[in-house]
Amino acid sequence: MISMSDNKGVVYLGAGNVDVQSIDDPKLELNYRGKSRQCHHGVILKVISTNICGSDQHMVRGRTTAPTGLVLGHEITGEVVEVGRDVEFIKQGDICSVPFNIACGRCRCCKEGDTGVCENVNPDRPGAAYGYVDMGGWIGGQSRYVMVPYADWNLLAFPDRDQALAKIRDLTMLSDIFPTGYHGAYTAGVTTGSTVYVAGAGPVGLACAHAAQLLGAAVVIVGDMIDERLAQARSFGCETVDLKTDASLPEMIEQILGVPEVDCAVDCVGFEARGHGGDAGVEKPATVLNQVMEVTRVAGGVGIPGLYVTDDPGGVDEAARTGNLSIRIGLGWAKSLHFTTGQCPVMKYNRGLMMAILHERCQIAKAVNATVIPLEDAVKGYADFDKGAAKKFVLDPHGVLAAAT
Amino acid sequence: MISMSDNKGVVYLGAGNVDVQSIDDPKLELNYRGKSRQCHHGVILKVISTNICGSDQHMVRGRTTAPTGLVLGHEITGEVVEVGRDVEFIKQGDICSVPFNIACGRCRCCKEGDTGVCENVNPDRPGAAYGYVDMGGWIGGQSRYVMVPYADWNLLAFPDRDQALAKIRDLTMLSDIFPTGYHGAYTAGVTTGSTVYVAGAGPVGLACAHAAQLLGAAVVIVGDMIDERLAQARSFGCETVDLKTDASLPEMIEQILGVPEVDCAVDCVGFEARGHGGDAGVEKPATVLNQVMEVTRVAGGVGIPGLYVTDDPGGVDEAARTGNLSIRIGLGWAKSLHFTTGQCPVMKYNRGLMMAILHERCQIAKAVNATVIPLEDAVKGYADFDKGAAKKFVLDPHGVLAAAT
Amino acid sequence: MISMSDNKGVVYLGAGNVDVQSIDDPKLELNYRGKSRQCHHGVILKVISTNICGSDQHMVRGRTTAPTGLVLGHEITGEVVEVGRDVEFIKQGDICSVPFNIACGRCRCCKEGDTGVCENVNPDRPGAAYGYVDMGGWIGGQSRYVMVPYADWNLLAFPDRDQALAKIRDLTMLSDIFPTGYHGAYTAGVTTGSTVYVAGAGPVGLACAHAAQLLGAAVVIVGDMIDERLAQARSFGCETVDLKTDASLPEMIEQILGVPEVDCAVDCVGFEARGHGGDAGVEKPATVLNQVMEVTRVAGGVGIPGLYVTDDPGGVDEAARTGNLSIRIGLGWAKSLHFTTGQCPVMKYNRGLMMAILHERCQIAKAVNATVIPLEDAVKGYADFDKGAAKKFVLDPHGVLAAAT
Amino acid sequence: MISMSDNKGVVYLGAGNVDVQSIDDPKLELNYRGKSRQCHHGVILKVISTNICGSDQHMVRGRTTAPTGLVLGHEITGEVVEVGRDVEFIKQGDICSVPFNIACGRCRCCKEGDTGVCENVNPDRPGAAYGYVDMGGWIGGQSRYVMVPYADWNLLAFPDRDQALAKIRDLTMLSDIFPTGYHGAYTAGVTTGSTVYVAGAGPVGLACAHAAQLLGAAVVIVGDMIDERLAQARSFGCETVDLKTDASLPEMIEQILGVPEVDCAVDCVGFEARGHGGDAGVEKPATVLNQVMEVTRVAGGVGIPGLYVTDDPGGVDEAARTGNLSIRIGLGWAKSLHFTTGQCPVMKYNRGLMMAILHERCQIAKAVNATVIPLEDAVKGYADFDKGAAKKFVLDPHGVLAAAT
Repeated sequence: MISMSDNKGVVYLGAGNVDVQSIDDPKLELNYRGKSRQCHHGVILKVISTNICGSDQHMVRGRTTAPTGLVLGHEITGEVVEVGRDVEFIKQGDICSVPFNIACGRCRCCKEGDTGVCENVNPDRPGAAYGYVDMGGWIGGQSRYVMVPYADWNLLAFPDRDQALAKIRDLTMLSDIFPTGYHGAYTAGVTTGSTVYVAGAGPVGLACAHAAQLLGAAVVIVGDMIDERLAQARSFGCETVDLKTDASLPEMIEQILGVPEVDCAVDCVGFEARGHGGDAGVEKPATVLNQVMEVTRVAGGVGIPGLYVTDDPGGVDEAARTGNLSIRIGLGWAKSLHFTTGQCPVMKYNRGLMMAILHERCQIAKAVNATVIPLEDAVKGYADFDKGAAKKFVLDPHGVLAAAT
Repeated sequence: MISMSDNKGVVYLGAGNVDVQSIDDPKLELNYRGKSRQCHHGVILKVISTNICGSDQHMVRGRTTAPTGLVLGHEITGEVVEVGRDVEFIKQGDICSVPFNIACGRCRCCKEGDTGVCENVNPDRPGAAYGYVDMGGWIGGQSRYVMVPYADWNLLAFPDRDQALAKIRDLTMLSDIFPTGYHGAYTAGVTTGSTVYVAGAGPVGLACAHAAQLLGAAVVIVGDMIDERLAQARSFGCETVDLKTDASLPEMIEQILGVPEVDCAVDCVGFEARGHGGDAGVEKPATVLNQVMEVTRVAGGVGIPGLYVTDDPGGVDEAARTGNLSIRIGLGWAKSLHFTTGQCPVMKYNRGLMMAILHERCQIAKAVNATVIPLEDAVKGYADFDKGAAKKFVLDPHGVLAAAT
Repeated sequence: MISMSDNKGVVYLGAGNVDVQSIDDPKLELNYRGKSRQCHHGVILKVISTNICGSDQHMVRGRTTAPTGLVLGHEITGEVVEVGRDVEFIKQGDICSVPFNIACGRCRCCKEGDTGVCENVNPDRPGAAYGYVDMGGWIGGQSRYVMVPYADWNLLAFPDRDQALAKIRDLTMLSDIFPTGYHGAYTAGVTTGSTVYVAGAGPVGLACAHAAQLLGAAVVIVGDMIDERLAQARSFGCETVDLKTDASLPEMIEQILGVPEVDCAVDCVGFEARGHGGDAGVEKPATVLNQVMEVTRVAGGVGIPGLYVTDDPGGVDEAARTGNLSIRIGLGWAKSLHFTTGQCPVMKYNRGLMMAILHERCQIAKAVNATVIPLEDAVKGYADFDKGAAKKFVLDPHGVLAAAT
Repeated sequence: MISMSDNKGVVYLGAGNVDVQSIDDPKLELNYRGKSRQCHHGVILKVISTNICGSDQHMVRGRTTAPTGLVLGHEITGEVVEVGRDVEFIKQGDICSVPFNIACGRCRCCKEGDTGVCENVNPDRPGAAYGYVDMGGWIGGQSRYVMVPYADWNLLAFPDRDQALAKIRDLTMLSDIFPTGYHGAYTAGVTTGSTVYVAGAGPVGLACAHAAQLLGAAVVIVGDMIDERLAQARSFGCETVDLKTDASLPEMIEQILGVPEVDCAVDCVGFEARGHGGDAGVEKPATVLNQVMEVTRVAGGVGIPGLYVTDDPGGVDEAARTGNLSIRIGLGWAKSLHFTTGQCPVMKYNRGLMMAILHERCQIAKAVNATVIPLEDAVKGYADFDKGAAKKFVLDPHGVLAAAT
């Protein structure tokens, strides 16, 4: 038995307030709403790396009903230090990527590959995640140790320890952001020679843009209002459009492509979208959805990995507060568009993306500007990220990444 | 040269007003907005059958900017009586189904199978149709004779004349309604064993329900507010839900299936949707979209063959008048749904459906209650259909169908 | 703890020799090649029905290296009577269908849906089955009780006990034959309106033909040399061709369809194929493969659920004994055909087919002429089946089916 | 009317014998077997570039029944200099890539995207090509001028003339070799992170390897027996295996990947395959097919763009002379492999690949070592290529490429 004394984690303490605090050691058990669920199928991971995600910000900004005391973190990579009784193939010492979606590997959804909406891991609705409000009560992994249930099903073990540590800044992106960006591009239909518009140059947008390149896109155009993020997108070969300007998006796309439309578009922004040009800064939740419809060519595809919610206490109006947005569906229909929404089912993509990373077919850490900081600096990381830093913060709870450099 | 003297057609004369009038003989040429376009690639058809479509009603009700004098009709089956100079494979005497979408067979969209948004047949936007406002100016086929351009590409010739005439009441549904319903079911993901909800029991809804059966659905549930239409749906093995009642749709579905959700849902209503239960009769354009999201299971599919428009002079509010509807996208996103919109690309499906008809694997005429009337009775047909008759009116301009019975 | 005293099963005793004998009670453990493997993830089933399969005949005829003492049977439906420690969702009393492929639900293949080649259930090669030579040593289920490992993953529980018992003669086909036939048709590309040739009117061929109907085929043509089997195929609406005659297969197809080719073809015979016409009765292992290529249209698909083996001690020549056959690949290539081989991954299809059965969208028991006999009569069942009886024998070890009628 | 005086082309004069001779000017007409077919739908191209293909070598080596006098060449890029009466969208002056498969754009196959087996362009069988035996009699394009029928359908016009000329050495690969290699990789299932084995490092093999990279493959392993070709494969990042050595292919793959299998394999050799190791140099037509089955993992895919023929006068035995090869289908079946054969339908891929070239997402000219020579040097080009030069010869009939450098 490995000692896990001194577990610490990033804890949500109320709107705008997180801290790194001592937390309980993980056990092979879930306690949620007064019920205990044994997890002999689980393992305990020593967390090697764990990233701050844009969707964590929704909670930290107070846009959700997250309870105080919640341990955050659903982007987790770690080493197995304790193995549950029923685990058969994952071994102690394996270094593994943890898909942010928790799945049982036994229900209809899991059997059909829809691990993002597993039926058995959340009493409220299909789908669960670590350290997230309304996602089943599983403890987050922005911490030193964390429990992963259904380990044989959920974990992706890296084939070689040394190789994994050498690429860990890239591999840490497999738990969420890289598959999520890829899912957006893939479901939008990006393939060899596509022209692509990616709305949003936050980490998911950048990951989506890089995934589009990996899928063979001819041109990837990224739109945002933050100069630093646009510069980051250009650093790995994307074209960019500055949404602060007064030019319309079709015009800016036409300047790049010669036509005002792309084959595929991806909304990597979600419900906290803000207006552009003259409306810059004002929250307009349907802006991005309507823009991607406007610039996608007929019979094209739209991927929507950006989060839209059923309940938004901070919504701009009553409709928005229940997830109702004014969408120009008539335009999408006239163009025969198709749309894919929802959480990325990470397991569908993580193995292939791991292979692409290990064989240096992509540089995702560089694309999203992976920035390693100690777990103790998480509070500053959250604050910098919220200001729009063109960085993907990777927490390093045991100093493994710092040592590896 | 065949004589086409005495051509007649159904002419739109203003809101609520159509008439059967003498019209010009068709020529291998299009005149639109003062320009002439030669159609040596076209043929002239003697119209054997031509159906009244729900989307014709949008024009006739005055919900569009259709100009008076427009000859209506885009559901056409006919016999080739004159062949253009450049036509190589279609022959005089062939009996053919005409896809309602006009396509050139030469642009990127056509090459990729997206014939519903052909780039070369409408100066205003991709996609064209016969006898429809803003769809390229092609003359409608609710008439005795009509011109079909790009005949080698567009026409589906039936393999045998006698066999075709024997099944003509079914085959007449291949030009639009049967492929359109099938497209809705297919893009919603209907396959062997699916449970399906079809919103709307008009002809497209009924065709969609029958298509879902053909695709192997275990249970097809049809919802509407008109008793006669629901009875028609039950007549070929569908379950039905009466949307006039106060029960919620999930409750009614649960009574049938034991669970309140279906695998796939199809919106066969479109933008003229009305509220249900207490709101019955009030136009609520997003009602159906929001309901199909509510009752579709996680990771499920939604097909949207029902028409949504970019401009609706009769819309309930300013947003609706430009095709903006208040959609609960947050719910769809939480369920990881995918959506397919747009005109059905008929050519993708019509050959397979023809084979299914010819070999009696489906009874589409019976499912939609095909009702043959003389061309001269079209005015009454339009009126009855507008009142919600559970009938699909088939015009018989030369009396061929009447003679065949 | 349920008593399972008096377990009995069908035991292979050498070429041409099977018997029903007392066998050990099942345990939650596999003993294979001197090694024990604990199966806390397994359950014990009381076998409700278990079918004799054509592939069992390969062993019984002595065409394999099956050891004497092997308990046969991989088509199993049963009631859960004992639940392993690690099973979480399957409950005692559930009536379940058992996919013949055993799969772990945790390896790459399982995650990708390829449960027919699971990597963790057979030390010799990917893929395992119950009661089959070289398939991992799992004990067969033509018996009163049997153990099913990885029960949460493998089992398909029927939603309602009474409904299940009422349809049990159909549901018993879900463990192998119906999905296997469906897989053949599906991978051959059968869809709405297809014309299909099915080689072989044994139970798999008949199941494939019925599956093709369910997939929407316009015409299904079944070929065989046994009159009784051809009559069975005609009994549910198939066309048939008699391969004993001297007419060529393309000629016979042309008489039915007007063209000598079909859209899709399925080889439901496999390596024990015999010559046709003048060569009738002589084993010609590539005959069927070459015929399906001959009659499939350009760009068409060929499904190959019929078994081809890597080692055949009874092969007609040295090449055949190692699975090498003389195939006219030049013809297949010229026609741009595509081919799918291998065991059906049952889990991909069984849920949908169950729904189709429960809602009476198909009559698979009738199509394959399900014939229920007591377990004790298995020896006669094997003998009759080997003579070419147009029957699918269903063993009834506890008399449940007899009582249900 | 442009003058085309002084047309010249590469003419087949018998086994081992080609020459550049004066040939007739092209007309908008095909004369084949004494019949004339008007081609008002065609255009005349001034040939900008035209490549020597490995499949031309089959004819030149005398392995076919090609008649003397045949003008060779099916890999054509050119400028439109004369436009047929019925051509509507292709314009004089357009620089276009010509898919090697000739297709009508009007038959079922064309409508379904299967342009490699068009039904209307060859009286003998579906599918046609320029300058090829038994492929419809269309005159080849290793010449100064050539006629292309159904020009609106067949031609891919480059968007900008200057851009096209700047990239012409890459764009010239769009007519056959790049889409063909891509088709092999794509139908084998190559996607993000795949490991791939490509059999053969001739131009198609190299193009396939580069296409696999574009599709996101993690590792591409190319096998051949010619050192120069293997070095060429390594020059753009492929791994290689030398098939002259005595090591087995699985062993060599294991040394590279750590496992003896790949996800996907592609046969880019075809029926003139030779034995490896000890059998090096001996024609063994099924060697490659059997090897790709051996090294492909379970449930994997095999693409077969390499040519297999129905009649081979020079076959090693009687079976081979009719296209029958001894294939270890039992092994492929046990592994649940799927196979795709046939001519690449170029139109499915050429637009996307053009975009990837124009935006510098791939360097196909470099990968295949494009080597530009004057038309007059074609005889030497054929000879060098036949000796195994690691070069793709591009003929430059008007000196345009030489001038562009």
